[in-house]
Amino acid sequence: PDISSTTFSVIENAFSLVFASFLGAAVFFLVSRRDVARAYRTSVTVCGVVVVIAAYHYFRIFESFKSAYGVAGGVATPSGEIFNEAYRYMDWIITVPLLVVELILVMGLVSARRRSLLYRLVPAAFAMIALGYPGELSTDVATQWLWWGLAMIPFVYILFVLFGEVSKVIQDQPIEVQPLFRVVRVALVATWMFYPIAYLFPILLGNTGLALALENIGYAVADLTAKAGYGLVIFLIAKRKSELER
Amino acid sequence: PDISSTTFSVIENAFSLVFASFLGAAVFFLVSRRDVARAYRTSVTVCGVVVVIAAYHYFRIFESFKSAYGVAGGVATPSGEIFNEAYRYMDWIITVPLLVVELILVMGLVSARRRSLLYRLVPAAFAMIALGYPGELSTDVATQWLWWGLAMIPFVYILFVLFGEVSKVIQDQPIEVQPLFRVVRVALVATWMFYPIAYLFPILLGNTGLALALENIGYAVADLTAKAGYGLVIFLIAKRKSELER
Ligand SMILES: CC1=C(/C=C/C(C)=C/C=C/C(C)=C/C=O)C(C)(C)CCC1
Ligand SMILES: CC1=C(/C=C/C(C)=C/C=C/C(C)=C/C=O)C(C)(C)CCC1
Repeated sequence: PDISSTTFSVIENAFSLVFASFLGAAVFFLVSRRDVARAYRTSVTVCGVVVVIAAYHYFRIFESFKSAYGVAGGVATPSGEIFNEAYRYMDWIITVPLLVVELILVMGLVSARRRSLLYRLVPAAFAMIALGYPGELSTDVATQWLWWGLAMIPFVYILFVLFGEVSKVIQDQPIEVQPLFRVVRVALVATWMFYPIAYLFPILLGNTGLALALENIGYAVADLTAKAGYGLVIFLIAKRKSELER
Repeated sequence: PDISSTTFSVIENAFSLVFASFLGAAVFFLVSRRDVARAYRTSVTVCGVVVVIAAYHYFRIFESFKSAYGVAGGVATPSGEIFNEAYRYMDWIITVPLLVVELILVMGLVSARRRSLLYRLVPAAFAMIALGYPGELSTDVATQWLWWGLAMIPFVYILFVLFGEVSKVIQDQPIEVQPLFRVVRVALVATWMFYPIAYLFPILLGNTGLALALENIGYAVADLTAKAGYGLVIFLIAKRKSELER
């Protein structure tokens, strides 16, 4: 749709803000990984890898958005080029399993338990993203609702298992990191909830500038917290645990 | 051929996904190499180098694919520019020998044995790629089959020797890494098989959008597993061995 040039600028600037944050987060995690004990280092490395991948995708999304509109006289008009939002799905299919891995590694579980969690959660994460994707490609509202509903099944399963697992593990963690694990537990559910909601904006509000802005700013906030913010908490847990074990 | 804009998007997104994965894998391997003992560090470094090279080639393939089509009104029409698939061969000619090197280094063989394997496998890898290349350039089906058949000879030889060597070496490895070597052995055969099959799609299905999609997604999956997935297993072997020796 035609959107106001203000809406266009706000979205464009939000994309740029997220890119810059991920760039900074990437440098932070990759440089700081050596400050934590060997046992938690891979977890922090994965935090870094996730934001590198996310930075790349935001760069692409930013460029794709800019080329999809021509701005003139206070109005941004579609240029004919596609605004390729599917980059988000390409991002999630890589980063969601990695976010699960980060958390599992920093919990310091015994390897059999770790393996069992990975074998359940990673396929569920793939299924969730793969089931959301056809709805993203479609322009038919019924189809979009259908795939949304199907993707919600693995979504609920993942959150349920992760929340339960963190809750179980909290008791075994050193008292000093228990509050951080409580933060992770809430952050997981709170930030992941953004995604299925942001997905619904264009369905509920139709093809308008407002829906476009809400959807993309919703995803931007969610991506920042679910990747950089969450990574920071993982790093803090790793650091605290390293100090305790030293 | 004209292809639908959905097919175009799916292929474009697959290229981007692979690029992003290699970028993430490169950061991971290059940063994590210091987490393994000196004896296995070169092996992990080579894993990083392979995915850097592969990321570069996927960037080129992505750009070449985009410039080869113009998308309008739900159809992607050839723009007249060539979709340069030969980048793949340029990639393989560098990375296939390096993949062989990674594996040989992490096995920790005595140096005479290592040398003998390299002298047999590296030339065979060159021959395999070089023999496949004329078939890729040709548009004549008989010519394509001919070079495919010739390239299959070194292909079978390489897999035969590598599979045999890994099988022989497994007994001498610490019990803790034997399952990982078994994964490598299967992964090698399973992922490498994709290549001669993906090559055949355009020959068997003709010059269609479906053949283009299957060929490129086939290669994408194969590249991801043969480079990043395989590198990850090499890294895990190196890490486990380092811990055992510490
Ligand atoms: C349930 C659901 C979805 C959930 C997506 C989620 C939960 C994505 C999480 C992404 C994260 C955590 C990225 C952070 O890096 C989709 C695919 C939008 C489709 C509609 C239904
Ligand atoms: C047998 C055969 C081929 C084999 C290619 C292979 C086996 C490539 C492997 C590439 C890898 C492992 C890359 C990963 O980084 C070609 C050249 C397609 C030509 C047709 C016959």
